[in-house]
Amino acid sequence: MTTQPACYRKLLKRMREVSLLNSIAGVIEWDQNTYMPAAAAAYRAEQFACLGERSHRLFTARAVGGLLTECEQLGLAPDSVEGANVREWRHHYDRATKLPASFVVKFERTKSLAYEVWREARGQSKFELFQPHLSKIVDLVRQKADYLGYEASPYDALLDGYEPGARAERIVPLFAELRAGIVALLGPAREQSAATPADLLRGEYPIAAQQVFNQRVAAAIGFDFQAGRIDTTTHPFCNTLGAGDCRLTTRYDEKDFTDSLYSILHEAGHGLYEQGLPAEHFGTPAGTAVSMGIHESQSRLWENHVGRSRTFWEYWHPIACEYFPGLKSLTPDQVYRAVNRVHPSFIRTEADQVTYDLHIMLRFEVEVKLVNRQLEVADVPAYWNEQFEQMMGLKVTKDADGCLQDVHWSTGGIGYFPTYTLGNLNAAQLMQSARRGNPSLDGDLSAGRYETLLAWLRQQVHREGSCHRPRELMEKVTGERTGIRAHLDYLREKFVGGQGT
Amino acid sequence: MTTQPACYRKLLKRMREVSLLNSIAGVIEWDQNTYMPAAAAAYRAEQFACLGERSHRLFTARAVGGLLTECEQLGLAPDSVEGANVREWRHHYDRATKLPASFVVKFERTKSLAYEVWREARGQSKFELFQPHLSKIVDLVRQKADYLGYEASPYDALLDGYEPGARAERIVPLFAELRAGIVALLGPAREQSAATPADLLRGEYPIAAQQVFNQRVAAAIGFDFQAGRIDTTTHPFCNTLGAGDCRLTTRYDEKDFTDSLYSILHEAGHGLYEQGLPAEHFGTPAGTAVSMGIHESQSRLWENHVGRSRTFWEYWHPIACEYFPGLKSLTPDQVYRAVNRVHPSFIRTEADQVTYDLHIMLRFEVEVKLVNRQLEVADVPAYWNEQFEQMMGLKVTKDADGCLQDVHWSTGGIGYFPTYTLGNLNAAQLMQSARRGNPSLDGDLSAGRYETLLAWLRQQVHREGSCHRPRELMEKVTGERTGIRAHLDYLREKFVGGQGT
Repeated sequence: MTTQPACYRKLLKRMREVSLLNSIAGVIEWDQNTYMPAAAAAYRAEQFACLGERSHRLFTARAVGGLLTECEQLGLAPDSVEGANVREWRHHYDRATKLPASFVVKFERTKSLAYEVWREARGQSKFELFQPHLSKIVDLVRQKADYLGYEASPYDALLDGYEPGARAERIVPLFAELRAGIVALLGPAREQSAATPADLLRGEYPIAAQQVFNQRVAAAIGFDFQAGRIDTTTHPFCNTLGAGDCRLTTRYDEKDFTDSLYSILHEAGHGLYEQGLPAEHFGTPAGTAVSMGIHESQSRLWENHVGRSRTFWEYWHPIACEYFPGLKSLTPDQVYRAVNRVHPSFIRTEADQVTYDLHIMLRFEVEVKLVNRQLEVADVPAYWNEQFEQMMGLKVTKDADGCLQDVHWSTGGIGYFPTYTLGNLNAAQLMQSARRGNPSLDGDLSAGRYETLLAWLRQQVHREGSCHRPRELMEKVTGERTGIRAHLDYLREKFVGGQGT
Repeated sequence: MTTQPACYRKLLKRMREVSLLNSIAGVIEWDQNTYMPAAAAAYRAEQFACLGERSHRLFTARAVGGLLTECEQLGLAPDSVEGANVREWRHHYDRATKLPASFVVKFERTKSLAYEVWREARGQSKFELFQPHLSKIVDLVRQKADYLGYEASPYDALLDGYEPGARAERIVPLFAELRAGIVALLGPAREQSAATPADLLRGEYPIAAQQVFNQRVAAAIGFDFQAGRIDTTTHPFCNTLGAGDCRLTTRYDEKDFTDSLYSILHEAGHGLYEQGLPAEHFGTPAGTAVSMGIHESQSRLWENHVGRSRTFWEYWHPIACEYFPGLKSLTPDQVYRAVNRVHPSFIRTEADQVTYDLHIMLRFEVEVKLVNRQLEVADVPAYWNEQFEQMMGLKVTKDADGCLQDVHWSTGGIGYFPTYTLGNLNAAQLMQSARRGNPSLDGDLSAGRYETLLAWLRQQVHREGSCHRPRELMEKVTGERTGIRAHLDYLREKFVGGQGT
């Protein structure tokens, strides 16, 4: 489209203003997470409220609905920039305007109390403290689903906020099959890594050396430090604060450099996606990541398919030895095996690549059952512990190591969890397609040349922004919908194939 | 006032919202100065514009004028919180609304170009590059003064933006007398420090050690690190980003730890003022610093009267030796003399305490003459160089070391400069009153107990916010208007009194 119609131009202007306000909120949130002094918290909350209110008012104004309706009558091509923008604006506008203000206020209040209680409950490992709050949250997300509307399952209305177009009725059987597949290879995978001691990499890794090494790795895979940086936080994250401004964070364990390294590879994976989005569409859906499941595919791809590969350590081991001389006593193969040790454990965020999805799928299963009233909130710990033992062979003895470990429910984020595993599935499927499309890929990766992979991802995924919905994007790029085959093949080959890749 | 009238409450609500938006701009400005990656600059400018426009629109709305008029008819006591707020809001409202939008746009555009050219001109030391831009700036500030209105001199309208109520006709003779007084003691002061070598403190001072030492000194004088922090920038500053959030910055010279130490003492002086303002009035004039001349008095007081005193080094020298072992070869008296070496030089920001005000007063004189059409822009370098040599006995051989050295003119800040010297005068006068009011003061300072001084400043100056105008505040606290006596006495006693204090 060469000349944009007036209604589209008006809408675009307003939406860019909404994005500006949201991006400013991003800056002050980053500051809060990194450098803000403690006494600033109360006023910072007012600063957030001021921006949030203005952004919400601008976005949900009746005039926006009118402009959207006008634009929808223009007959825009669905995968044109303009068509995609209007479609996605409508999606967000409907989600934002269907919820009555009184409901939003009540939900916010419930969540902020639930979050405080969850912290307390996890600290004491007492589910019964959290239980009444979780009950309220479940009731409220059901109501939310009713307001938003859905076809098959109320869970879909929640999921749709993170993975547009995804449906529980498809994910449930997909995950059931994946779970069976992973459980089947867990035994042999454990056996294969039985010879690798848990503490093989324990040593002295000064934080300053970790910082320089991580920076070098992130730059090598293509993260642009002219348009981003790395700071320190308790919980690593990647956040875009504006055009040309992508901030990563990590934390440091002086006894184990791989903790910060793999968070940086993970967050830089997110960051490469953010930096690869078309800058000319910044602040509109065409310049925005399409879904959490695609976003997570990028982080997992760089963290695991690249960073936890054998060739990665063949290339990086001698370089790492410059920063961490203690590593000289190990071979690249030993480091590779150490960072791929399969070992069922209680805490999701510490899980290896094989067991990770088992944590995710169990939580997803519980979420769906709660939302569908097939499980009582009071029965969550018993159900969790029973299923966990079945899958992992580990007996949960305290809820802090079980159903209480993750923050998401307390912040109302039911529907988010499955995107973690969808990310793993997408990563494996994209990696397979990247190999098909780039015969030189493995050679390039072995030589520490990451441009081939990044250029392909830029072209296939990043540049697309939200022009296609996640399902269409995966079909367009990989020839099929998100499935479990590529991921299971990858896990099997790597973890029970003998040598690993 | 126990119940506030509706018009005041409405005004207060809106003004707090304006402050919220401005404080958010403060956060993103701080980020820009400290950590923002280079590629983020263009979008950051849009973020600023978005906040600035919203804040300006909210503040200058016709409704505000109406509410102010209503409030002015309430007969509020002039030094009550409400009375002071209404007076100051009116002051700022009038200044903001008297300038036509077209003038503001033209001025902004001229300044941003002038700033770029000034950088270039200073780099090449070519005044003729900057000259046409300075001419435009001078024309525009004259126009600005005409829009704002004034009684005696157009310069007053400019000055009023930084030092409310100050008048050139009073400052001109005050500074003339001060200049004569300083020039008279410059010779003997140079003689007294002739025996102190310029490089006495040159050594190896690792940045990490400087950071810890500075932090310890700043905490000792009372800067609250729960409500503030120190970061690194090229140009040190102190900026309040919200209630409970005061950020200082400095820079480090690995060969001279006093560079960062004295900027931190200076900036922490500003910070103590900001942290001492009444928190309950944050975002209103009653919770805001009253003027630049009072602000600078706080920074100068802690930097010079406290930090450059003999007793300071008697107390801190052994502690500094823990961080900088090289200092063990010096006595406290030697360090004291080194940080007080009087030595005329070209660059204001590197000037000693005696010659500093000569730089300021010369620039003020040039500004007044330019605004009053008593000096042509083309003649500025010749005038500067002649006057400079008269005062300092130094021949300026390049404009970069002379009239081109400071940024202020290029950013339209004509009228700001005199507040530096007013700050010095106020600092000496306040210090004299603090001694009168606190017989234990000198003993406390010798023992590294800064609470007495800080508590007095809190009570007398900080807690007052902008409830009194600067002149009234000085009269109330010190018994007289800002004058030169206390400062000259202090300089004379310290720099030509033999021992120094």
